[in-house]
Amino acid sequence: MAVRKTTLAAIAAEAGVSLPTVSKVVNGRPDVAPTTRARVEQLLDQHQYRRNGLRAHRRSGLIDLVFAGLDSPWAIEILRGVEEWGAEHSIAIAVSSVRHGDARPASWTSAIASHHSDGVILVTTTLTTAQVGQLRGAGIPLVVIDPANTPPPDIPSVGATNWAGGLAATEHLLSLGHRRIGAITGFADMLCSLARLDGYRSALERAGIATDPDLIKYGNFEHEGGYARAVELLDLPDRPTAIFAGSDQQAFGVYEAARRHGLRIPDDLSVVGFDELPVSRWASPPLTTVRQPLTEMGSAAAQMLGDLIDGRPLRTNRVELSTELYVRESTAALRQEALCACLTTYPKCTKCRAR
Amino acid sequence: MAVRKTTLAAIAAEAGVSLPTVSKVVNGRPDVAPTTRARVEQLLDQHQYRRNGLRAHRRSGLIDLVFAGLDSPWAIEILRGVEEWGAEHSIAIAVSSVRHGDARPASWTSAIASHHSDGVILVTTTLTTAQVGQLRGAGIPLVVIDPANTPPPDIPSVGATNWAGGLAATEHLLSLGHRRIGAITGFADMLCSLARLDGYRSALERAGIATDPDLIKYGNFEHEGGYARAVELLDLPDRPTAIFAGSDQQAFGVYEAARRHGLRIPDDLSVVGFDELPVSRWASPPLTTVRQPLTEMGSAAAQMLGDLIDGRPLRTNRVELSTELYVRESTAALRQEALCACLTTYPKCTKCRAR
Repeated sequence: MAVRKTTLAAIAAEAGVSLPTVSKVVNGRPDVAPTTRARVEQLLDQHQYRRNGLRAHRRSGLIDLVFAGLDSPWAIEILRGVEEWGAEHSIAIAVSSVRHGDARPASWTSAIASHHSDGVILVTTTLTTAQVGQLRGAGIPLVVIDPANTPPPDIPSVGATNWAGGLAATEHLLSLGHRRIGAITGFADMLCSLARLDGYRSALERAGIATDPDLIKYGNFEHEGGYARAVELLDLPDRPTAIFAGSDQQAFGVYEAARRHGLRIPDDLSVVGFDELPVSRWASPPLTTVRQPLTEMGSAAAQMLGDLIDGRPLRTNRVELSTELYVRESTAALRQEALCACLTTYPKCTKCRAR
Repeated sequence: MAVRKTTLAAIAAEAGVSLPTVSKVVNGRPDVAPTTRARVEQLLDQHQYRRNGLRAHRRSGLIDLVFAGLDSPWAIEILRGVEEWGAEHSIAIAVSSVRHGDARPASWTSAIASHHSDGVILVTTTLTTAQVGQLRGAGIPLVVIDPANTPPPDIPSVGATNWAGGLAATEHLLSLGHRRIGAITGFADMLCSLARLDGYRSALERAGIATDPDLIKYGNFEHEGGYARAVELLDLPDRPTAIFAGSDQQAFGVYEAARRHGLRIPDDLSVVGFDELPVSRWASPPLTTVRQPLTEMGSAAAQMLGDLIDGRPLRTNRVELSTELYVRESTAALRQEALCACLTTYPKCTKCRAR
């Protein structure tokens, strides 16, 4: 089916704006009101007005890196990877944050179009259909880095092997003799939470240990979540001797809960984190954790975006980079004297007391 | 004195390049070799070729935020402040890192000029004359955020009240009864190190306590530096009962040194940090620290740069934002039983033993 060539004048008439205004939108000029730009872009998209050829000639040498928020310590790790790629390829990286709860999502793509972005890397835990539609409408290539969820398969994305990480963390604790292992993970609606937890479950299952639902806690990935859930675990009558936390920040919350319970790490409680933030090396004691290669994820996403911008086909639409266990000093062999006589649970064995 | 109007053709002839090449440099186009751009920009500067008026018409809506490196956890704090200002003013923020040890410093301003930057915020601990000269040559407004050094007075800059922070930290420890207070600070050639240390010295002096050179250690602001210097302090025959660390990262190193010495914080050792990174709230125990308002410093620098870009005069060339002591759980009153009979030093009082 042939696409009827729509003139900019027709779009201007339909949008109720002047032709120069439409021209400004097409050329990505900044001096257009966000609502006007959105309306014109919607019409350009409806009429399938081709701007890709134009973009290719007007390459700006700038890509956008958009975070859901700049309040996570792993944002800087991803930024470093993208920036390194940018430095190698003489591409500038514009960093911004999508703000929630106001009209900003609409103006977000408008802002990106206004500074002639060649492409966008979106780091987010929630990618809305509207966001994707806005970028597609503006003809801007998009790659998603998502440490939490797998985006729709038609959107190129980069993640990490969360399931394998959960498996490795739990197998490490099992190899140290732990049998009652608590798990604190993120929200149940985040895929990475489920993947890490399923890795934990599979490790227990392989070791012939039944999963105890009391030992699994959902929360958020922040310090507060780790602290609150760890307090619940440590208050159990037969508390775990080890905790696998779903993030390093959660693990630091577990540290604080242990300290307030008078428990020493790793003597009384082993702790494994997830992420391997730089600060994890300098937790006290240094944290055993599963490395999520955030910097490499940033570089990989930038490379994919570079391919899209240059019109090179992607080898795959989904890249998952390997996680890796870093063993430090927050995990230790289960102390035998801490075991109940039944040799399965610790320290106030409810099973034995029940017998 | 009237400035003779130099033509671009004359500059092209002097530089030994074509007129279109000079034109590209003037217009900030990317397709010019870095060395050529540098030579042309030097000549444009020598001949005082006016590009500011041109720039004003070609406002890109983009500023650059350049870090000395993206490996510090406080980089994201500064970025957040700059990005918030950018979102309010519809200005995009291009983030990059100056790389050392290769030809990048020369290409750095070239890259910035090539994407039509309206201005630059430089976050650095070492601002070279060459860097400043390059930006001035390109006619790009510059503001420096420097948590470490005060830049030359003619360069607009933002910092924090380091001396007042050192004073507040030390007075807090004195108010808790501590008398042997160790200080770990950054390199002796960094002004912020000296300012924080002088605050410490003044607090001791006001309390009538002589400064003990054994208790003052210089290092770097990283975890490693804090750890190594804390080990030295804790190995002293009459070790300090409290340590004022020059950064939160150093303070976490002190935590680890204390743990390895079998000392509990705050029972056996009080610790104060500097910066108030988000993670300091979640150290175990939560860290008493001096807040350096990094996010506000980012916003303040962006506001100053916005004024410069718009041609508004700055009220002042140097802004110092207030530090503030955050008292948490890493500091406690000196335990009286820990005191020597002479009530001045602790725990193996060399003075008493000498008597």
